[in-house]
Parts: sequence; structure tokens; C-alpha cells
Amino acid sequence: MAELRKDPIVDRWVIISEERGKRPVDYSNVQPSLRGEFCPFCFGNESKTPGEILAYRPAGSPANSSGWSLRVVPNKFPALSIDGETHRVGEGMFDKMGGLGAHEVIIESPRHDLSLEELPEQSLEDCFWAFSQRLNDLKKDERFRYIMIFKNHGEPAGATLEHTHSQLIALPIVPEMVHEELVAARRHYEYKERCIFCDLLAQEFGDTRRIVAENDGFVAVCPYAPRFPYETWILPKYHSARFEANGTDHFPSLARLFKDVLSRIRKYLDAPPYNFYLHTSPLQTECDAYYHWHIEIIPKTTKLAGFEQGSGCYINPTSPEIAAENLRNVAL
Amino acid sequence: MAELRKDPIVDRWVIISEERGKRPVDYSNVQPSLRGEFCPFCFGNESKTPGEILAYRPAGSPANSSGWSLRVVPNKFPALSIDGETHRVGEGMFDKMGGLGAHEVIIESPRHDLSLEELPEQSLEDCFWAFSQRLNDLKKDERFRYIMIFKNHGEPAGATLEHTHSQLIALPIVPEMVHEELVAARRHYEYKERCIFCDLLAQEFGDTRRIVAENDGFVAVCPYAPRFPYETWILPKYHSARFEANGTDHFPSLARLFKDVLSRIRKYLDAPPYNFYLHTSPLQTECDAYYHWHIEIIPKTTKLAGFEQGSGCYINPTSPEIAAENLRNVAL
Repeated sequence: MAELRKDPIVDRWVIISEERGKRPVDYSNVQPSLRGEFCPFCFGNESKTPGEILAYRPAGSPANSSGWSLRVVPNKFPALSIDGETHRVGEGMFDKMGGLGAHEVIIESPRHDLSLEELPEQSLEDCFWAFSQRLNDLKKDERFRYIMIFKNHGEPAGATLEHTHSQLIALPIVPEMVHEELVAARRHYEYKERCIFCDLLAQEFGDTRRIVAENDGFVAVCPYAPRFPYETWILPKYHSARFEANGTDHFPSLARLFKDVLSRIRKYLDAPPYNFYLHTSPLQTECDAYYHWHIEIIPKTTKLAGFEQGSGCYINPTSPEIAAENLRNVAL
Repeated sequence: MAELRKDPIVDRWVIISEERGKRPVDYSNVQPSLRGEFCPFCFGNESKTPGEILAYRPAGSPANSSGWSLRVVPNKFPALSIDGETHRVGEGMFDKMGGLGAHEVIIESPRHDLSLEELPEQSLEDCFWAFSQRLNDLKKDERFRYIMIFKNHGEPAGATLEHTHSQLIALPIVPEMVHEELVAARRHYEYKERCIFCDLLAQEFGDTRRIVAENDGFVAVCPYAPRFPYETWILPKYHSARFEANGTDHFPSLARLFKDVLSRIRKYLDAPPYNFYLHTSPLQTECDAYYHWHIEIIPKTTKLAGFEQGSGCYINPTSPEIAAENLRNVAL
């Protein structure tokens, strides 16, 4: 059974999840190519995944049959389990708790041969709908503190299956990266009574050098101090702390900009592996006034090495001004 | 010219270093094997590196000639430059400063075909001597706040040259990971008047399940909440905040344990790529009472994916108790 442990020096939780050690691809530096092999996410193989939690499919068609356009299923090798406990235990100076959580897979399309950015806008919109529905469902469970939605695209970015999908992990803690943003955003708000992300957008619109693309509802920027080359963030232009409370009339606009930006990255960097993740409000924290949800996209072009691991300071060979200019100039 | 930039939301510095973009291996997901190609770190090629800063060589032999047992040279593609400025500038809500620093390479042996752990103990001891000498020399430059010493072994761990070497980057800031440890250690000391690392070692010696190896001066433990499988820390058993003030009579003991632990990792995980880095006191901070230097070794067996990047929470498929037991049981 998995458990969460906290480093006694820095406040960093880790998930010790020995179940995941069973995955055949772990501990192998030479990954098999998954192209052409059996794919549990394709039509006809619905019985090879755990039963679906949510699916967009023709009215009346039975669950776990073919014909769907999007499916959400439990991860077959979950990092955390819904049966886990939240009981917190001290072991001398150490802290741990049971491995409670949920780990789901969003199969974004039945098409095995296309990446998310190659799918029609409707598929991306469906994907955001599914994120929103799962957030709204899982937040009813008051044991959860945070839901992290993310995507690993391509094997160097950590994907173990090729078929386009994203993932969701519900956690009984607020993870460090989100906690840091929240603390900083709250401090800014207490001092200025403004959202730090709204201030940041105001400055970016005044400068424009780091803006990649925008539309009526959203803007894509290369952040001022990016850790990685071509790191790009997508934020709503209006203040909004919670992705799932976002007014779903904005999803077509988000889907349009998201596809646009991913397509620029794909074309400029020659279809790189990438990760993205959603930073939205924790479930049990009142932060609507000062937090601002956003999606961070990280193309995988460099390797994390000893300096970055040991310092937390990243060396980035491409300035965000150059990255944004190059992405803006892509002819789609 | 490189510059340092600070993220306006979380206090994370990044180095924007476009010089490094010139390195031929960047932006390529398919790395050429470097075996058999020209190696600037081998005997006879001393003129292909910048001139040496330090070398262990027979008395009377000229600088930058062959015959050395260890060489320290400036990195040919430095992330930061000694000619950089420390001038701090605000740009609206953003902060930046010039890319002042030093970036050096410690060529640990003339042997191209051996990894650090395959070299004789004397080579590892020389390596620690060189780290110590460079720390003592660079700390005279009061513009520097921290010196990060690290190693990338193997291409998946970020190495761009095969020949065994480690690196050093002197920074005009204290990087985030070290800063976090310092803040936590100071808080613990203010409350208890004890070193948190000494307390941690006392608990580990009481338990013993996570101890990999020890000798008269040093101990190797798999930490309680490790981010990565087989992550192993080496710490002095006695309280010591500064690696370079460590009493060099301890280096033979450190070399012996370090070679032992790296050899166990090599044998158990089949010569994996790995990183290690030294966490020692910042240069301009008085923290001798509460900080405790240590080396963290990270075998590269898993990929950092979207969940870890977005959350800062790591999923580790191997508990430190199992990792330590497996490493202890290796027959060397």
C-alpha cells in the first residue's frame, strides 16, 4: 500500500508507491517503442482498462463499449488509492500518512495516430469539459486537498503509452509547487489587494515581447523567468481562481488558443515531447480573491542534471523573448 | 551575456544563458554516443580545454601538459561568467541581475574508460581535495554567495562528455534548495539548539533500516522521504557545516565510503547514469552552528514527468528501507 512521507528538513511530500514498481517500463533506460504494439486505449479494447468513470459517447450506447469520443478510466497502476487512509502518523521526527488518493486517465480521443494538438478543437474542448467534470465530482470527497491534472506526451516526457491521454491525481495534501504560489499570491493580495497574476498579465500586455498568442478569453506567454526553453503558460485574461468554476462558455476559446500554441511548439521544435499541468485552486482553501488558475506547458528539450537537482536553479539556454518571438512567427 | 532572473511569483532564480545554446548537443533528443570520438579531457588534448586553474601533476611539469592525475579547467561553455556583473535591476515587478559566476570542470582522472567509482580510492580523495581547494579559492571573491559542486554521469543524467568529470558553478545568489534547508535548519536550531541533521542521524542510527554503509567518519543513508529510487545521502557523522573546513584528514575516510556506495549502486542497478551534488554552507552566511554538509547521490532510473514538475511532489516506486537493504546486500 502506498504512503505519503514528508522530508523532515524541507517540507516536501513524496509518494512511496511500490505498486507502481510493477510497471514493466520502470527501471529500464531503454524503453520499447510502443508504436504498433497492443494499445489498451483504442476502440475494441475497452475491457483492457478498468471500467470507465466518465465517457462522452452516443446516447444509449453501453458503458465500456466502442464509439466514444473521450473516456476517463482509473489508472491501472495507480500511485495512490481511493481505499487509502488519511491517518497521519509521526515516527520520531518523521511524518507520514496513508496513500489516499485517486489516479485517473483521460483518454482524449479514440485516434491512436494523432497527438492532442492534431485533433479537432472540439476534442480539446471535450478534454477541458472532462477535466472540469472530474474536478467537480472529486471535490465532493472532503479527504482530498488538491487535484493535479497533467499530461506526459512522448516517452522522454514520461509517457508509457503512446495513445494521447492526460492524467489526474487527487491528493490528501496541497503539493509544494502550488502551495508556494498560493503563499506568494496571498502575500501580494494582503499588501496590495490585487491578484499577482492579474498584475503580471498587465505588465506582459504593456511589454508584449513575451506574448505568444491571445484571443478573447486567454493569453499565452513565455514567463519572465522560465525554467525551460519554450516554457509557455496559458492564463485566462479575466481573474479566475478555479478552472472548474470557469464558466464553461470559455472552453471553446481555451481550446482554440491551446491548440494554436501546442501547434506552434510542435512545428517550431519538430514535434517535441512535452508535459503540461494545470495549476488551479486547492479544494479546501478559500483563495478565490488572490489565486489565478493557469496551465504551464513544458516542451522537453533539455535534460535535468545535477546542478538543477541540487540547486533548484535552472539553466535555460533560450530567453523567453526569443522563444515567444520564434513561436509567434510560426506560420500555421 | 547571461543573466539571472527571478520568478515574480515564487522566489526561484533561473539562469538565462544563451551562450550554452551553442553547445552542439542541446535541443537534440537523440544524443550521439560519445564513445570513441575525440575527447578533450584525455592526455595529449590539454590544449583543447581552456587553460588549467588547478592540476595535480608531477612536480616541475609544465601547466597544460600531460602527466597529470587531476585537472580543473574553466567550462568551455560556461553558464555564468567571471566577467559578469552583480548589478541588480528591477523591470516593473520583475527582478534580474547580471550573469556573474564561475563554471569549472574537475577532470577526475586521465583514464577515459573508467567511471569515478572504478578509480582507486586515491583518485576520489584527490577529487575531494580539489573541491576543497576550489571552494577555498573562490570564496575569497566576495561577490559569490554559493558554490554548487555536482556531477552528471551518463548521458541520461545530463553528461555531454563521457570522460569522468564533475563541475562547479559559483553563484551570486544562494540557490533555492540550499536556502530551504538553511531556513529549516535555523528554525530547528533556534527552537532546540541542536543541528537538525545531527538529530536525523541519531534517529537513523537508532533504526538502522535506512543505513547503507558507514565507517569511522561518515555514514550513507537512504533518506526517509526520498524523491528517487536508491537516492542516497552521505553525511559526516560529526557536526560540520562546511565541506572545505572539514579537516582534510577526513578525506580518505570519505573517499572510502563514497567509492563503496557508488560501487554498490553500480552493481545493484547495472551501472546506471547518476547525479550527485554537494550541499555545503553558503559563503557569506554564518551558519556553522546549525548547518551540516552532505552529498546527495541520485541514480537516474526514472523520468521526471508532468506530475512531478507541476506539483513538486515525487512518486517513488521504491521505499528507502528496501533500497538500503538491497544496497547493503550487494557483495562487492
